[in-house]
Amino acid sequence: MIDLAIFLDRTSTTPLYQQLTEKIRLAVLEGRLKPNQKLPSSRSLAKSLTISRSTVTQSYEQLESEGYLETRHGSGTYICHQIPDEWLKSQSIEPVTTKISQASTLSQFGKSLISIKSLEVSEPDRAISFRYGNPAVDYFPIQQWRKFLTRHCQNSTALLNYAPDAAGYFPLRVEIANYLGRSRAVQCTPEQVIIVNGSQQALDLIARLVLEPGDWVAMEEPGYLGARHCFMGQRANLQPIAVNSEGLDVSILTSYDQKFKLVYVTPSHQFPTGVTLSLPQRIALLQWAQETDTLIIEDDYDSEYRYGEQPIPALQGMDRSQSVIYIGTFSKIIFPSLRIGYLVVPQPWISLISSAKWLCDRFCPILEQCALTDWIAEGHFERHIRRMRHLYNLRRQVLIKAFQNYFGERVTILGENAGIHVMVKIETVLSDDIVIQKSAAVGIGLIGAREYYLQPQHQGEFIFGYAQLEETQIEQGILKLSQILNK
Amino acid sequence: MIDLAIFLDRTSTTPLYQQLTEKIRLAVLEGRLKPNQKLPSSRSLAKSLTISRSTVTQSYEQLESEGYLETRHGSGTYICHQIPDEWLKSQSIEPVTTKISQASTLSQFGKSLISIKSLEVSEPDRAISFRYGNPAVDYFPIQQWRKFLTRHCQNSTALLNYAPDAAGYFPLRVEIANYLGRSRAVQCTPEQVIIVNGSQQALDLIARLVLEPGDWVAMEEPGYLGARHCFMGQRANLQPIAVNSEGLDVSILTSYDQKFKLVYVTPSHQFPTGVTLSLPQRIALLQWAQETDTLIIEDDYDSEYRYGEQPIPALQGMDRSQSVIYIGTFSKIIFPSLRIGYLVVPQPWISLISSAKWLCDRFCPILEQCALTDWIAEGHFERHIRRMRHLYNLRRQVLIKAFQNYFGERVTILGENAGIHVMVKIETVLSDDIVIQKSAAVGIGLIGAREYYLQPQHQGEFIFGYAQLEETQIEQGILKLSQILNK
Repeated sequence: MIDLAIFLDRTSTTPLYQQLTEKIRLAVLEGRLKPNQKLPSSRSLAKSLTISRSTVTQSYEQLESEGYLETRHGSGTYICHQIPDEWLKSQSIEPVTTKISQASTLSQFGKSLISIKSLEVSEPDRAISFRYGNPAVDYFPIQQWRKFLTRHCQNSTALLNYAPDAAGYFPLRVEIANYLGRSRAVQCTPEQVIIVNGSQQALDLIARLVLEPGDWVAMEEPGYLGARHCFMGQRANLQPIAVNSEGLDVSILTSYDQKFKLVYVTPSHQFPTGVTLSLPQRIALLQWAQETDTLIIEDDYDSEYRYGEQPIPALQGMDRSQSVIYIGTFSKIIFPSLRIGYLVVPQPWISLISSAKWLCDRFCPILEQCALTDWIAEGHFERHIRRMRHLYNLRRQVLIKAFQNYFGERVTILGENAGIHVMVKIETVLSDDIVIQKSAAVGIGLIGAREYYLQPQHQGEFIFGYAQLEETQIEQGILKLSQILNK
Repeated sequence: MIDLAIFLDRTSTTPLYQQLTEKIRLAVLEGRLKPNQKLPSSRSLAKSLTISRSTVTQSYEQLESEGYLETRHGSGTYICHQIPDEWLKSQSIEPVTTKISQASTLSQFGKSLISIKSLEVSEPDRAISFRYGNPAVDYFPIQQWRKFLTRHCQNSTALLNYAPDAAGYFPLRVEIANYLGRSRAVQCTPEQVIIVNGSQQALDLIARLVLEPGDWVAMEEPGYLGARHCFMGQRANLQPIAVNSEGLDVSILTSYDQKFKLVYVTPSHQFPTGVTLSLPQRIALLQWAQETDTLIIEDDYDSEYRYGEQPIPALQGMDRSQSVIYIGTFSKIIFPSLRIGYLVVPQPWISLISSAKWLCDRFCPILEQCALTDWIAEGHFERHIRRMRHLYNLRRQVLIKAFQNYFGERVTILGENAGIHVMVKIETVLSDDIVIQKSAAVGIGLIGAREYYLQPQHQGEFIFGYAQLEETQIEQGILKLSQILNK
């Protein structure tokens, strides 16, 4: 009689017959039970394990249906004869291959992801981290948000099931269209608003739908990495276009002979320099796009935060030739882990972008779209923006003043009085890497701007996110930084 | 003096200066105000509109900063001279172009989306709709779920901000790895579990990372449309492989000479036929994949629902050569609009899939990942599965009995006693389209199986989803259907 060496855990919540089934299966796969080996009768196994006979029978039947065991009439239960030898070797913990054989397995897209430098970098946490793009989430009224979420936790078959429209929850699209119309002068119907998982998905969808390998894309120089990576993923050629005090220099753009498929711009608050695209430049850009049939991506990522004048109306609202796809996000206003953003697309693009969204991941979670709809409709969204605008303005002033106090003439603040980060140029003989290293050593997280240039000849430029930092942290951070650089 | 024809709405919540700014801007863009035209002084405009002078001044300053107006010293405020004529034409409601010029604008991916038939079809609602894949969301304990959601509505900077890892919330990956280990015999570490927005995103990520145009993919015939569309989006060649009573016929697969990049299988409960891939076929498939260095996608979309025996363990757990990427979803168990699914990938794939997720849409919403983690950890997940398994088993029995009662020998029930849909073959002289039309006329939504074949020579096969229907609806639906077909 074979020794099954089976231990059954009577304190476990896993039923005994299931434990038995798993143990026998494992014994077969690990070669401890061999093909054609006879098993004990159900009666005798039950006795030896002190379990009921029906438990054993149930387990044997299951294993028979899986093809591990077979009943030979008048003879008993056997391990199947047809399990090939190699499957019976003991399972090795070591993987057979330790990396993906790139050449044969991966697509060009897969290979390009491996080659993109710093695609997925998370800055280490520091005592004072001037990370950009992080809003002051501790000021978000999460208890209020909770009420809006729970309001929609209902057994609504319509809301819990597959959504009828990949483009998003229609009432939310109405609220967004209204909001954009009144505060950004965006001209659109709710149908033109398509809800996605943040602005990154918007960029990726457009890149996939438009770019073939070798196509040309014009990018602001310096520019946003999230967009650059999407274009690189599609293996487009990137043409950096210098940014001056009026934003993207359209005269440079128009001087190129090649056909551009896309131009990526951040007109309200250029990322990362912070300048605003001037009206003459906007007009020139739209005119050129119309003449050359080029698509413009307008990424309006933080236009809500402007501390001097009113926000500049969106480029989209001035477009007459359906050249502009507008992108916005709730990450900078509500909280980044919400993952809701949107596109506003020209009418002919609605069904295509919806199809692409459906293919990629069906649609965005509905419950949070419902909560957001009411939160906007009842005025909390714009109220929160105003509150945050006040807070960020104070923090910004502390930052600027600290720079003036501790650096004086040795620092140049770039860009407009807007956004939740500021780019500065610091006069120093130290290299960017040394500055970042020395800062890290005293608990300050700093981000150099060099990486945001495609042609990185620039030194001494840094991006300071301040929204998430207390005023004393900002003040302390800049003081410490000045001490490093004054040594 | 020019006539500005400005109407300000004093009941609006939009501040007056903002209304004024927008009206003047619009007048410029529509050509009602011309370049070099002189505007009324702030004093006289304030008087004529009966608003304060500072309101006008604020508005003029804003428009000046935007480049619409200019102050000529000692002379007054003028419309800028540099706005080109074409921007001043009245805005046309008619779009200039009404569709996307495909040839020049779209990528191959964009074009293929347009050519994929029925990419995004939502079946119209009927009184009794045998739609497949919809769980009984009205039985989901949404009030309990609400408590788990609100538990995590806290001002946690870590949870509200950008996630440190695109692969998902680590505690959820631990819970999933444990659950899959104990109930699906999946062998993985939590690191190998990557959280995505449902199984569709899992399929799309793999398709993008692996497939180049022209690559071969083997698909079960008939097979799942969501997967087929992802492969078509990458312009792969699809090779249908017949499914028999043991699932995918591996002997056919191995008879082909071409190199397959991917094989897509649904071993636990083949979609849509419902058969289970037998152990010998599993072994043959894994052996062939190892020998030919082919990647297997195991889509385990509804393996939780098995009414006779225990669920068959996953293919992934038997794999020794890192050939299997396993996909699962919470859509069929919790509710589809949650949008959480996962991949279990071989160790060498972890960083690549994480990078792709980061590029595509950063990471999944965190709040719901936190709620789900606790819901699983506290046993509610598996409790809910058991409850639903009981309900669906009853509904399934009603369906099968109704078919037997009303159709007798004229119907063949395909597949195993599992899942939340059943595929049946009905003997009828009517074409599928006529059956579907006639059913719709009496309020019954029916889905033909023909579309699920790449080589659609099959007639009289239909897919019946029953999970979301009451027993009386199921009974009534099949009765009515029999009356149509018996006429």
